[in-house]
Amino acid sequence: MAKDKKLVEAITSMDVDFAQWYTDVVKKAELIDYSSVKGCMAIKPAGYAIWENIQSELDRRFKEVGVENVYMPMFIPESLLQKEKDHVEGFAPEVAWVTHGGLEPLQERLCVRPTSETLFCDFYSREIQSYRDLPKLYNQWCSVVRWEKTTRPFLRSREFLWQEGHTAHATAEEAEARTEQMLHLYADFCEEVLAMPVVRGQKTDKEKFAGAEATYTIEALMHDGKALQSGTSHNFGSGFAKAFEIQYSDKENKLQYVHQTSWGMTTRLIGAIIMVHGDDNGLVLPPRIAPTQVIVVPVQQQKEGVLEKAFELKQVLSNYKVKVDDSDKSPGWKFSESEMRGIPVRVEIGPRDILENQAVLVRRDTHEKITVSIDQLNAKVGELLDTIQKDMLERARAHRDAHTYEATDMDTFVKTVEEKPGFVKAMWCGCQECEDQIKEITGATSRCMPFKQEKLADACVCCGKPAVKMVYWGRAY
Amino acid sequence: MAKDKKLVEAITSMDVDFAQWYTDVVKKAELIDYSSVKGCMAIKPAGYAIWENIQSELDRRFKEVGVENVYMPMFIPESLLQKEKDHVEGFAPEVAWVTHGGLEPLQERLCVRPTSETLFCDFYSREIQSYRDLPKLYNQWCSVVRWEKTTRPFLRSREFLWQEGHTAHATAEEAEARTEQMLHLYADFCEEVLAMPVVRGQKTDKEKFAGAEATYTIEALMHDGKALQSGTSHNFGSGFAKAFEIQYSDKENKLQYVHQTSWGMTTRLIGAIIMVHGDDNGLVLPPRIAPTQVIVVPVQQQKEGVLEKAFELKQVLSNYKVKVDDSDKSPGWKFSESEMRGIPVRVEIGPRDILENQAVLVRRDTHEKITVSIDQLNAKVGELLDTIQKDMLERARAHRDAHTYEATDMDTFVKTVEEKPGFVKAMWCGCQECEDQIKEITGATSRCMPFKQEKLADACVCCGKPAVKMVYWGRAY
Repeated sequence: MAKDKKLVEAITSMDVDFAQWYTDVVKKAELIDYSSVKGCMAIKPAGYAIWENIQSELDRRFKEVGVENVYMPMFIPESLLQKEKDHVEGFAPEVAWVTHGGLEPLQERLCVRPTSETLFCDFYSREIQSYRDLPKLYNQWCSVVRWEKTTRPFLRSREFLWQEGHTAHATAEEAEARTEQMLHLYADFCEEVLAMPVVRGQKTDKEKFAGAEATYTIEALMHDGKALQSGTSHNFGSGFAKAFEIQYSDKENKLQYVHQTSWGMTTRLIGAIIMVHGDDNGLVLPPRIAPTQVIVVPVQQQKEGVLEKAFELKQVLSNYKVKVDDSDKSPGWKFSESEMRGIPVRVEIGPRDILENQAVLVRRDTHEKITVSIDQLNAKVGELLDTIQKDMLERARAHRDAHTYEATDMDTFVKTVEEKPGFVKAMWCGCQECEDQIKEITGATSRCMPFKQEKLADACVCCGKPAVKMVYWGRAY
Repeated sequence: MAKDKKLVEAITSMDVDFAQWYTDVVKKAELIDYSSVKGCMAIKPAGYAIWENIQSELDRRFKEVGVENVYMPMFIPESLLQKEKDHVEGFAPEVAWVTHGGLEPLQERLCVRPTSETLFCDFYSREIQSYRDLPKLYNQWCSVVRWEKTTRPFLRSREFLWQEGHTAHATAEEAEARTEQMLHLYADFCEEVLAMPVVRGQKTDKEKFAGAEATYTIEALMHDGKALQSGTSHNFGSGFAKAFEIQYSDKENKLQYVHQTSWGMTTRLIGAIIMVHGDDNGLVLPPRIAPTQVIVVPVQQQKEGVLEKAFELKQVLSNYKVKVDDSDKSPGWKFSESEMRGIPVRVEIGPRDILENQAVLVRRDTHEKITVSIDQLNAKVGELLDTIQKDMLERARAHRDAHTYEATDMDTFVKTVEEKPGFVKAMWCGCQECEDQIKEITGATSRCMPFKQEKLADACVCCGKPAVKMVYWGRAY
């Protein structure tokens, strides 16, 4: 049994060193491998299958709200990147530059897209002529590159996978409505599918996207009390339209600028799933996103009829994503491996269970064991998956709420951030000086001005001047 | 009605100028837009939706044969690309080089992947230790870059979308079996889904992939009689394994090199669909790959009840991918637009049809009109889609067979290539000199040595020496 323990022993406890725990889980659950390309990762089958499930569920939701998929080039000519002033300032310092094609130097440098606003704008400037061409509701699934100095798997890497939606509208109202609609779509997806509660709100001017008039965000709280920005949606107004000359003739035949939005979610979500739900035994996957929902582990599989029964149970459970572990490892090793991989339900079946026409179900999230009659197995597993999904969201919400604090003076603010990792709600006057000062003193940044405002006090927690917004603050990934 | 004609008039007839016809269809069916990045295209919703259908059908077939998806970095360090000699010679002249990350020059240049053998090998060299780790059956969906001098939408562009499968096996036999299995999977997909018959065979040494021991290919014949390589599958033997030190301990604990394969299909298939099935009215999509299978066009839609009926028919046809064209364009314009976009079945419904409880079905492939009772609409459309799919494959096969010739002497060979565009079957001695000479004289290249060999003569068509193989030759895209 010494060998059985190895898998778990290899993981640092999350309370001892959360960062090391995260790295251990990412490796031991076989989600990624570090590659020979610095700052880039190889996403392994167990990790990519989670991304495929995120993709298919998000893509379905996008299509329901009229979004169509397209594909733009991965390169942006330097002159195109420079057309919108704020945007190029935000991104130019962190792009990868292609300078040679084959054996020849290029006449103009191309950057590998860090995001594709400029390409979509260039495209729209040709595609959009009349009000009949609007709205354009396009999205693409691709990888983007940002030359980060320090990287961490899923959370910050030089290349990452994402979707980027880019829409163009006739009116400012329509663009604003779409920006908010997509943010809520993201939030609902996180809560319903990833079992991850989020705070929905608006970024301050300091934290908004390069070139945006308004950026909306969903912010989740990780197990260690740090915040993770999990999806953003931007309203560009007609700033890009003016820089790229994207105009349409309205019904009175007058030229008007379009109003644009963009919104994105990334493989970062996989990091969020790990850090919201994981424990010292490894990954814990919500059933709705798990590539394998149920694993059947035969016990004493060398005994007659055990393996056959295990595969019979797989058939019984064919409504779910189910696998049988018939490898020649010991049952104990298989148990820890299924836990490490975060499989929501384990079904254990041995000779004695077979005699009694029963199986043992083990919940990954609570380790609870439930003995059920095989006749009821299918129904019970279905219920259990639903229960786990619901409980995981509730537990994550309870954790988030228990780690959300309030501060109405700076002393409390500083002490809270220092001693109680989590969100701090505090009033703000609206000026960047206070944001800067809070960051300087506490390391916390403004995460968002939540849509659901509360009035905790009249004065800004930092400068004491009249407050205009209640803000969620926190240290963040 | 002048306006109605415009859409069709804008297309060059395929018999007048096939290349221009192709370009016109690609633009008018709204599959792509040329981008500001030379040699790269923007794939629009109508084009991308075809790719999504190709992806989901291929991906399903891959998973059925045990393949798992992963994602490798898009960059390859120069030193990694250079590890396998033949491979680097084949690809280095046509890669894009990243030399700067942010504001800093890189210590080592990175190329944007033209294909990912080197990255997978690097990955496998760490992942594979024991025979228990084999086989590895991995695939990735991504875009790749090859710095082509002349480009054409879908057929040859500097960036294109594809899938690349990379497998590692314990034995040479297993690798060979997988190489062939994936080629047949591709061929079946082309025939069953794209209604495109293909010749299955092996490439000559001259035409094989850089670094491969054997390359298998499927070759399709376009409407203009030119060949299109539509998918390839490569057996690398242990060449890459030796260059990258990918070894495993076998059951006797002895170190062995793995045997590898790779196989890929690309957005080029969209070009093939266009050139196999299209006509002077535009695109013709096989029902099984069409993003919209049925379009309902209301006639005299301003009259009471017509639009309502059109949407009612959409409900009736909800088993299929169906749309209603309720735009304010004229019916004639809508008809040509639905033809241009290649929608397999059009349903026309007007006031008189409503009175008689009927609708008119129009086949895109044959223009045949069929009046059906609305009670039978659902069943009839289902049958019709099946029939169209079948007929399209049969027509394409008949065209291919009618344009496949034989030559047993060079005069006939030259004359055939010159006067009768198509495949030429001819015997070959196996030496590259003859291949070079045939290309020099006729412009035709060896497309493949088909698995189904025929003995047309004893002697090589070129040099007269004893023949070893029957080869398909042809001018190609």
